Amino acid sequence: MTLDTLTIALDAMGGDHAPACAVDGAACALEKHPHLQFVLFGNEARIRPLLSKHVNLGKHVEIVHTDRSIAAEEKPSNALRQGKQSSMRLAIDAVKDGKAQAIVSAGNTGALMAMSKLVLRTLPGIARPAICTLLPTKRSACVMLDLGADIESDAESLVQFAIMGDAYARVMLGLQQPSIGLLNVGSEEMKGHEELREAHAQLKALSHTLSFHGFIEGNDITEGKVDVVVTDGFSGNIALKTAEGTARMISYFIQAAFRHSMFAKVGYLFAKGAIGDLKKKLDPRKYNGAMFVGLNGIVVKSHGNADAYGYAQAIAVAAALAQQGINERITEEVRLSSAAARPQEATV
Amino acid sequence: MTLDTLTIALDAMGGDHAPACAVDGAACALEKHPHLQFVLFGNEARIRPLLSKHVNLGKHVEIVHTDRSIAAEEKPSNALRQGKQSSMRLAIDAVKDGKAQAIVSAGNTGALMAMSKLVLRTLPGIARPAICTLLPTKRSACVMLDLGADIESDAESLVQFAIMGDAYARVMLGLQQPSIGLLNVGSEEMKGHEELREAHAQLKALSHTLSFHGFIEGNDITEGKVDVVVTDGFSGNIALKTAEGTARMISYFIQAAFRHSMFAKVGYLFAKGAIGDLKKKLDPRKYNGAMFVGLNGIVVKSHGNADAYGYAQAIAVAAALAQQGINERITEEVRLSSAAARPQEATV
Repeated sequence: MTLDTLTIALDAMGGDHAPACAVDGAACALEKHPHLQFVLFGNEARIRPLLSKHVNLGKHVEIVHTDRSIAAEEKPSNALRQGKQSSMRLAIDAVKDGKAQAIVSAGNTGALMAMSKLVLRTLPGIARPAICTLLPTKRSACVMLDLGADIESDAESLVQFAIMGDAYARVMLGLQQPSIGLLNVGSEEMKGHEELREAHAQLKALSHTLSFHGFIEGNDITEGKVDVVVTDGFSGNIALKTAEGTARMISYFIQAAFRHSMFAKVGYLFAKGAIGDLKKKLDPRKYNGAMFVGLNGIVVKSHGNADAYGYAQAIAVAAALAQQGINERITEEVRLSSAAARPQEATV
Repeated sequence: MTLDTLTIALDAMGGDHAPACAVDGAACALEKHPHLQFVLFGNEARIRPLLSKHVNLGKHVEIVHTDRSIAAEEKPSNALRQGKQSSMRLAIDAVKDGKAQAIVSAGNTGALMAMSKLVLRTLPGIARPAICTLLPTKRSACVMLDLGADIESDAESLVQFAIMGDAYARVMLGLQQPSIGLLNVGSEEMKGHEELREAHAQLKALSHTLSFHGFIEGNDITEGKVDVVVTDGFSGNIALKTAEGTARMISYFIQAAFRHSMFAKVGYLFAKGAIGDLKKKLDPRKYNGAMFVGLNGIVVKSHGNADAYGYAQAIAVAAALAQQGINERITEEVRLSSAAARPQEATV
């Protein structure tokens, strides 16, 4: 890992709080990562005044002006056809042209995926990209993918997700040999859809390159039973959002409980530090930043409603992935796995 | 709702703590529901001594002895062929023969479903049964199905799940007009699998009998956006278990936080009441008891590791469903919906 300058392209017009979240997020990210440079794509007249708040930004920011931005509800097909001059598209182009090493956007997920696929294409040996992120577990954190790039996944894609998740866990969790689980409705080998059973068989055959645990169930995700949770985009999206909703409901109940009585309020004062730690541990902003993994370029999606701290986390994810060469690792792992899957060819 | 005697058949040999959980659970349920009678199916030599702990049980319990029980890991096909004298099968038979109005089992889910389908068959107009339960939400609770009876569901089944969930919410939540949501990865009408989009269209057409909200996402479940969450058994199972795992992780973090420092421990003492209320609110035992809805008889599955309190909740669910005639309601709703879907036939 080097600390050479790294340039991140920001789609400054994407997200509920654009362009402030990108500007404030960049400033916040710089505090921890002073080697970063940013190219902000968007409306210069709106971005420029926001820079003045942050004395540290000056030398680290370039603005590329464009009037066009992709609306939150814009159809991906429309963004593809009519968004060539949009802040999102120009930011992706900057990665394609090597002017930036990664792009971060808090904008329209479907449009970002469609444009990224078109411009960057998939890595050699990868059929489809996946959305990949870190999630908290009892033990620490795990990697989960796909979270909704595609609603269906065949066995081949699931195996590729496992390989990409493995590389992601090595980079983001610093693990030597991440364990990989396939999300299913039971842990027995005969359970689940045919694609899942086929992927299970293929992953077992890759056991010299991957540490495959087998099937896991929904409750095993937060248990930390495996380091990488592989699933199709439909189930993954539902699992992720259900987990977020459950955490939000419990926070709501906790807050209500401590407002309930005088005793509880006094208890809160004493336990403030502990509750603060708990909040920090579960702060969804800490886990902001999902990579569109499998593309020939690093694309990181921030939550649409991210604040400066959340946006800075997404920038940090993009920086770590670029610095540690996630895509080179994936390409190498794909090559090793293909060789392992076809030993007869390797000996020719 | 009458308070006439109601007889519940208990598969006393199912579950991690069998037969104690069934005996203790029955005794616990009687405290709140003194009109219940139980027939316990299982090993009399093991059950009989457990009865002596509970003075209230004597007049309310009959034991039907059998040596055979279904093991937790037994294949459903084996249970079907070789389990005719098992405690589980005899308890289901008792419902079929009208000797009991419902059955509760904490045993092997797959075997219970297979035997129940074979013995009881589905209700008129229902193609496949679903597993259905209540879940906590910010507002109160919602009904969710299917939680894993089948891993795939076509549009027709999803519509039937909606009708059954509607009846379930009327009975268990006392709602006049429950709102119904279809679980998807986005709320726009064009999103998701074809079956989901087809079910969406069919449910919209039933708007005079059902209050159909449209698509919902995973985070909307605990938000309480709808009263009934309809999904296929694969996604439903994953969502339910992910929610359970997330809740368990947060409880674990809360406990750790309050043990963390002297201040936090003092805070805990003051806030004990509030934390106790919170625990009670999120106690998974409160939501124990999932109905195999759509069968011609009431079958309620308890968690395998339920204690007496949890088991008593499953008994209470079975009793409420029987007392309020859930299956008569479903049959009537299916009839109304079919009539609504074919107005031309109705006028012939």
